[in-house]
Amino acid sequence: MEKKKVLVIGGGFGGVFAAKALERQGRGKAEVELVNANNYFVFQPLLPEVAASSIHSADAVVPLRQLLRRLQVRQAEVMGIDFAKKTVTVVQGTRRIPVDLPYDELVIALGTSVDLNRFPGLPEHALTMKDLADAHRLRTHVIGCLEAADVTDEPDVRQQLLTFVVVGAGFSGVETVAETRELVRRALKYYSNIKPEEIRFYLVEYAKRILPSFPADLAEYATRRLQIHGIEVLTGVGTKSATGTGVELTDGRIIPTSTIVATIGNGPQRLVESLGLDMQWGRIKTDRFMRVPGREGVWALGDAALIPLIETPGEDPADYATQTAQFAVREGKQLADNIIAKIEGKELTPFAYTSKGSLASLGMSKAVADVYGIKLSGTLAWLLWRGFYLSFLPGFAAKFRVGVTWLLNSVMPPNIVQIQSTPPATRYIHYRKGDKVFEPGMLIDGFYTVTKGTFRLTIDNPETGEHFEKVFAPGDHFGERVLLRSALRTGLVVALEDGILLFIAQKDFTRLARAFPILESYFKDYIERTFGGADKSFAPGSANHKHELETSP
Amino acid sequence: MEKKKVLVIGGGFGGVFAAKALERQGRGKAEVELVNANNYFVFQPLLPEVAASSIHSADAVVPLRQLLRRLQVRQAEVMGIDFAKKTVTVVQGTRRIPVDLPYDELVIALGTSVDLNRFPGLPEHALTMKDLADAHRLRTHVIGCLEAADVTDEPDVRQQLLTFVVVGAGFSGVETVAETRELVRRALKYYSNIKPEEIRFYLVEYAKRILPSFPADLAEYATRRLQIHGIEVLTGVGTKSATGTGVELTDGRIIPTSTIVATIGNGPQRLVESLGLDMQWGRIKTDRFMRVPGREGVWALGDAALIPLIETPGEDPADYATQTAQFAVREGKQLADNIIAKIEGKELTPFAYTSKGSLASLGMSKAVADVYGIKLSGTLAWLLWRGFYLSFLPGFAAKFRVGVTWLLNSVMPPNIVQIQSTPPATRYIHYRKGDKVFEPGMLIDGFYTVTKGTFRLTIDNPETGEHFEKVFAPGDHFGERVLLRSALRTGLVVALEDGILLFIAQKDFTRLARAFPILESYFKDYIERTFGGADKSFAPGSANHKHELETSP
Repeated sequence: MEKKKVLVIGGGFGGVFAAKALERQGRGKAEVELVNANNYFVFQPLLPEVAASSIHSADAVVPLRQLLRRLQVRQAEVMGIDFAKKTVTVVQGTRRIPVDLPYDELVIALGTSVDLNRFPGLPEHALTMKDLADAHRLRTHVIGCLEAADVTDEPDVRQQLLTFVVVGAGFSGVETVAETRELVRRALKYYSNIKPEEIRFYLVEYAKRILPSFPADLAEYATRRLQIHGIEVLTGVGTKSATGTGVELTDGRIIPTSTIVATIGNGPQRLVESLGLDMQWGRIKTDRFMRVPGREGVWALGDAALIPLIETPGEDPADYATQTAQFAVREGKQLADNIIAKIEGKELTPFAYTSKGSLASLGMSKAVADVYGIKLSGTLAWLLWRGFYLSFLPGFAAKFRVGVTWLLNSVMPPNIVQIQSTPPATRYIHYRKGDKVFEPGMLIDGFYTVTKGTFRLTIDNPETGEHFEKVFAPGDHFGERVLLRSALRTGLVVALEDGILLFIAQKDFTRLARAFPILESYFKDYIERTFGGADKSFAPGSANHKHELETSP
Repeated sequence: MEKKKVLVIGGGFGGVFAAKALERQGRGKAEVELVNANNYFVFQPLLPEVAASSIHSADAVVPLRQLLRRLQVRQAEVMGIDFAKKTVTVVQGTRRIPVDLPYDELVIALGTSVDLNRFPGLPEHALTMKDLADAHRLRTHVIGCLEAADVTDEPDVRQQLLTFVVVGAGFSGVETVAETRELVRRALKYYSNIKPEEIRFYLVEYAKRILPSFPADLAEYATRRLQIHGIEVLTGVGTKSATGTGVELTDGRIIPTSTIVATIGNGPQRLVESLGLDMQWGRIKTDRFMRVPGREGVWALGDAALIPLIETPGEDPADYATQTAQFAVREGKQLADNIIAKIEGKELTPFAYTSKGSLASLGMSKAVADVYGIKLSGTLAWLLWRGFYLSFLPGFAAKFRVGVTWLLNSVMPPNIVQIQSTPPATRYIHYRKGDKVFEPGMLIDGFYTVTKGTFRLTIDNPETGEHFEKVFAPGDHFGERVLLRSALRTGLVVALEDGILLFIAQKDFTRLARAFPILESYFKDYIERTFGGADKSFAPGSANHKHELETSP
């Protein structure tokens, strides 16, 4: 029998467990390849623990090549699928030349992506919790807030820095707020200028209660535990919009904060949407065998798929497999069976599964569990949660090392190392009416163009008494003195209404301007024309603070 | 007695040990504050082990606040010093408003920076090994090379990806090449398409032999060990220049490689240079008490300082303290004593120290050691090296955890997780004559302007037989179709001589162009004027590969 080429695209729970079962059962019958953008599998439920440094980040992920020793793993980005030719186009490696991979059977396991576009400002200002980089980012951001709060006296800046808001109270949201609070609590003893009572945590959930997949009494217990730990649980209220300094809720309340973590907004991957497949609720409709109707040899599973559990499913979500790791694992195994059955000309089996229960960690050695109908809460549930995770780790050595880390956690000081990273060179920043963009005396960091709204610049020269004022509308720009390489802001810019600015970092902008003489001369003219002499006044002492001049290559 | 304000700027070995000694001895006499850009201390000798994942990155650093519990730690960037006013200007936190910190005694412990500007292309294309981010970057880069090599068949691309060059053979260079080789060797079993004999390692050293601070016979032993491990040791030859595809040596040889690690080029920090102090060999001249002559209350130590060991030092480097961690630690303690002595009106003690020896790890459980005049090599020296490090870690729990990690290393699979990061939005890329910038069929990633040299674009339309050619000189630009959002390159661009391009990533460039209508119209005109119809021909099938269009906020 000729070997069939089985291509699995996506390396989450669904894709990995399908590939693993195919590797075991498909020997001699199938040649299996898994394509994923990252070369590792993320154990997503542990990301909040990584963010809180309760475990090393290397222990929340497993390299796909180690998990799937006997099949081909390809680190590549999927760009498109040609269902007629039966090929998947990927981009891989350093050369960026698209490559077509042929398949006989294709498993679409691409999961979901985060789509926060319904909430203005949230895509730009919220952190997410989808992959390892997100967990690192949250940890670094939280420690950065503590570092900054430790050295500032301004009450409103302190309040923003010391308020942490998590949006969405499913598993991910509850564990994220609990673990972040744990990190902050443990770190606090090293920040002597911060008082514990200055710190605020919010968990914001649009539904009537948290943890919708749990029985009401366990959710109630979880709510109480979070409240005992000082976390304000706001239910029945959603997020409306966000800026760099706060989040606005649907009840009109504005919570001033520098930290918004969004665990909401699961939507389809752009690629999945572009495939022209029959979709419902953002998921690919399959039959009960997980085949995609009308596309020969194409299967879908996991969060990207809508798999009916009954013969004639309707509009009730309970008619379909739920989007959890537990289901994805079972789907993967079943799908592998079905592909082998198809190759062998045997009968396929419809997917059927009932959840064995749920576990959610609440931090501080507490959890809630609803397993085989038995409800548990507290430390026992928490031990169950950790045991479940340890059982999942491949290899005794890894289990032992993680076990040691967990045992030592209570005696180890928290990891408050902040690895700083450069923010993106260009980014959109949302402002609410009245927000300051910058003010005199601030170090120049870049340059702004108005995308939406209006902003007012005022420059007052204390020596001459001169006053200058100008309003900027969409298409206008300000802060151009980056080109002139002065150091401190002399003007104040305030948002006159809600608006958006495109920020461009100084270094990148000057490189660009140097490469384009037309830009440089445009700006010189513009500054002369617009400000005349007004923008040439420097703050006293600014000459000391000359920003470093990049060496030209 | 009024407490004196002692400010330590810099959190390396010198600064931290000075602060620690001041914390111990200065109680009631001095109020000590340490300022550092990062909130952690890096145990630099372990960075190569972090890069090779032999230890967790969290174990090579200690948060400064944990190391220095009883004094003020400030995460801030030093911008300038006003010796007359006795203040240090720093920028800290999120507000970017410079703050002046007053001092009575100031300890300059700013170390050195890497300056590769003497080697064209090296600043842009070499990795360094100075801090934790560097170690992460090297690890991720090496794994990325293996991932890319695993899926490409092109011989010259494979050769570049599988050749690893370390420049400089001091401690850092030797340990980096040994640990990188260790990482690659252990990872290789997961990359079934890569043959061990395809892999090449080079250690390039300008001096006549490696490890100049060791006795010749130990350096000889180290060289042999490295060679046994398949590392080519090139001595008496330096680096001339580098590009993204290779490094050119002073003997004219070009080694094709995607990985260059530079452990050379220690130079003064820009800030230190700008202070107007008396410098020699890029270091601040001090007296034997580590005072900076002519500046009341100012001291310097560590790699930033040139501290004489004898009364009348000359041009012999041996007349001065060497730039090692060992010396810096001793300097820190002595300097603290001297500051306390000054406050108490007692006599200062000149700095005097002789090295107790050196240790260098060679990977594979081997090291060389020259301690108290006793020379050791092999496994015993390696155990000594590890023991020395464990003794340094603060707290029993940390020692235990690192010990467990080390013990388990041999049975644990290597960590080949590659956490991808976005490259900078704008960057300079060096090319050698004949290098391809891009070729037809490549995915468009950005846009290029010529900074130096000339580049030739050719477009051939296979359908119409049309041929288009154009040469670009400094100030010219190409690849603008990012603005038109097409997907695949249709032209070939080759460097006609050695040159440099400024690359601007697609996303950032389109954001910018959208913000500046003048730019967008300039480019549309330019493309029409320059290419006419020639650049509108697309590769077949390119419509499938439409690059994702960013949603406008």
